[in-house]
Amino acid sequence: MSERRITRRRLLGAAGAGAVLVGGGGYALARSNPDPATGADRTAGADRVAGVDGAAGVDGAAGPDRTVVAFYGTHQAGIATPVQDRLHFAAFDLTTDDRGALVRLLRAWTAAAARMTAGAFAGPDGAFPTVVQAPPQDTGEAAGLVASRLTLTVGFGPGLFERCGLRSARPAALVDLPHFAGDALDPNRSHGDIAVQACADDPQVAVHAIRNLARIGFGVVGMRWSQLGFGKTSSTTPAEQTPRNLFGFKDGTNNIAGTDRDQLARHVWVDAADETPWMTGGSYLVARRITMRVETWDRTSLAEQQQIIGRDKREGAPLGATHERDPVSAGRLRPDSHVALAQPDSNGGITILRRGYSFVDGSDDLGRINAGLFFLAYQRDPRAQFVPLQENLAANDTMNEYIRHTGSGIWACPPGVVDGNDWWGRALLG
Amino acid sequence: MSERRITRRRLLGAAGAGAVLVGGGGYALARSNPDPATGADRTAGADRVAGVDGAAGVDGAAGPDRTVVAFYGTHQAGIATPVQDRLHFAAFDLTTDDRGALVRLLRAWTAAAARMTAGAFAGPDGAFPTVVQAPPQDTGEAAGLVASRLTLTVGFGPGLFERCGLRSARPAALVDLPHFAGDALDPNRSHGDIAVQACADDPQVAVHAIRNLARIGFGVVGMRWSQLGFGKTSSTTPAEQTPRNLFGFKDGTNNIAGTDRDQLARHVWVDAADETPWMTGGSYLVARRITMRVETWDRTSLAEQQQIIGRDKREGAPLGATHERDPVSAGRLRPDSHVALAQPDSNGGITILRRGYSFVDGSDDLGRINAGLFFLAYQRDPRAQFVPLQENLAANDTMNEYIRHTGSGIWACPPGVVDGNDWWGRALLG
Repeated sequence: MSERRITRRRLLGAAGAGAVLVGGGGYALARSNPDPATGADRTAGADRVAGVDGAAGVDGAAGPDRTVVAFYGTHQAGIATPVQDRLHFAAFDLTTDDRGALVRLLRAWTAAAARMTAGAFAGPDGAFPTVVQAPPQDTGEAAGLVASRLTLTVGFGPGLFERCGLRSARPAALVDLPHFAGDALDPNRSHGDIAVQACADDPQVAVHAIRNLARIGFGVVGMRWSQLGFGKTSSTTPAEQTPRNLFGFKDGTNNIAGTDRDQLARHVWVDAADETPWMTGGSYLVARRITMRVETWDRTSLAEQQQIIGRDKREGAPLGATHERDPVSAGRLRPDSHVALAQPDSNGGITILRRGYSFVDGSDDLGRINAGLFFLAYQRDPRAQFVPLQENLAANDTMNEYIRHTGSGIWACPPGVVDGNDWWGRALLG
Repeated sequence: MSERRITRRRLLGAAGAGAVLVGGGGYALARSNPDPATGADRTAGADRVAGVDGAAGVDGAAGPDRTVVAFYGTHQAGIATPVQDRLHFAAFDLTTDDRGALVRLLRAWTAAAARMTAGAFAGPDGAFPTVVQAPPQDTGEAAGLVASRLTLTVGFGPGLFERCGLRSARPAALVDLPHFAGDALDPNRSHGDIAVQACADDPQVAVHAIRNLARIGFGVVGMRWSQLGFGKTSSTTPAEQTPRNLFGFKDGTNNIAGTDRDQLARHVWVDAADETPWMTGGSYLVARRITMRVETWDRTSLAEQQQIIGRDKREGAPLGATHERDPVSAGRLRPDSHVALAQPDSNGGITILRRGYSFVDGSDDLGRINAGLFFLAYQRDPRAQFVPLQENLAANDTMNEYIRHTGSGIWACPPGVVDGNDWWGRALLG
């Protein structure tokens, strides 16, 4: 587990030890500890206020910030980490073929991520430097806010391996996803050379993190698209109630628990024996932006809704069962129901780790709410997991009448950053 | 103050007393108390879980829901109410000229709003009715979530007064806003016959409320546009720290306090002596979607940023002063700074009540974050308040280099709903 709570100072010390000097919007990470006088600690001194979400703020208002998720570890945080409440997901495209620039970017991003996930400003001089004649190293809007369980998780898309001489390093498992029945993908909401998943309990903290990484990346990467999400729809914490998606149903009940090492090893983490050594300890991410036709759904009878999903709406129990976590018995469900089709028994045991978020992006030209599920699935090999699962769902799921896949991407998420000398992608590029 | 806490049952009883029968997606509000067996109380029984934002959930997990803001009162809630953390704002256009249909819609919306702001389902049969052969009266995604300080505030736009024989009732103060220098308004993010502002501490609760009102309005209104917001940028609570906007600055320091009856009476609430009697106790809302060019801003020196705003970035103090709430002394500021231009002394005492939210709507074609401030201003007369203030800012504010107004609307928000027999707009349409 990478979620053990450690103090901010210890984290910052480790981050500072990996000092690098970066051009193109970067900065020197020259000190081994943040200087309180420069406000590098976001909640230091007079700036300390309650977080936007009360509980976290109270928690962090005195003493060490207890809303910090450890950044360093064998695996990247943000995968098995208990799902936070908010998401800002960004896909970037490389604007250079200079491998050295890519390495400098990833080193600078790693250093900034180590700082921000610890509740500090993106750069050691903070948002309010005493020398005012330059742009600050941090944009400032998270000043006073605690870490809010921020995690930052990076993945490399197929496009990255077309550049910087990386073609031969592309994992075979990082396939170009096939066209699935019913796909209506918007290229402006799909793909990207590098993805960054920011999850936090405070949206301002997640947005701040993506924005500061984009700022640091100026000249090396440009943002291709980004997506905000709220209301996590999956839980990786078995004790927690499963949240409801915008169809009003509990979704993701049988998710892999972030504490289940065996399941994670079998289904999520790339193993040293798998075919791409540099991915050992990493995972493959598939993101799908699934637009829900909520107006049509809302005019459907409760009976029909429940048959389409295969669960009772109130309790979340599989139809024919009583409680949410009762086993699914496929014989009691319509064979084209979502649960019957998606459950491991119908798919040769396929299991993926899901971290989905609801989204609402205003409304469309027809006055329909532009809403849905931003589906994030982590897995050991998409060829054996997401692809066959989605082939099955796309062909047979009666829910398809109410959904449309409007965005898509696949990324190879490298292993975790183990300490302040390590950086995202070192195993690939170092 | 309309924020006194009252029990859910008392609210629901009052709501139920105003029973109406509505067509076009509506429902009968036939019972005077919700029936626990139907789950009309969202957190009843087995469905009771912690809210998405922990504090509220713990708060509501036992006994009466203490996150309820009173719906009934002389003024609509959501104006002087302490600013909640999240926003879903929707603008609807009428699709009929049938005045009776409009009245039935407003009565049905009022009943549903009374229920939802009390933490109940939108309709008395709830999300999980025992009769499953019809669509449920509630879409279900807020089941188990507490009220989360939800407020719903309605306003009537100029377009409404072109229909249903209402032309002569249009308030003179409900002007068509003039074109301001630099306006780049998107008609798909502007105007609307009826606006609904949903504010809550949980985005799922705000989204649920707008969606259910849209569902009830099917056939009478269609959604024209909607906007999500997070990270309130203004506080109407003097004791609270002023939140930061996406420029990283504290914004809205000198806002009207929701507890300051004198200021509210002078600047916010329409008086019986004003020219439109049916608006007595109401207020005029101007919304402006202000896109911020954050990438350009982030490359500006701290000195320049502070001079443009007229405040110190760390403390939020006016330049030349020490503390955030120190008085602004115009002589110490650049005359074209935002604070110098916006302060009441520079505008003949003009004061407005602001409830702004930050937004991030993905990124644009150039890879820039599509972010900014959704500015909501309440006032007694826009002709004397927002219009001259914005004329001054649009012509002179150096901040205009970094912002662009991309959406706009003006609405007459009627007085509050006083009890279960009353309804939104009764003074206009009853």
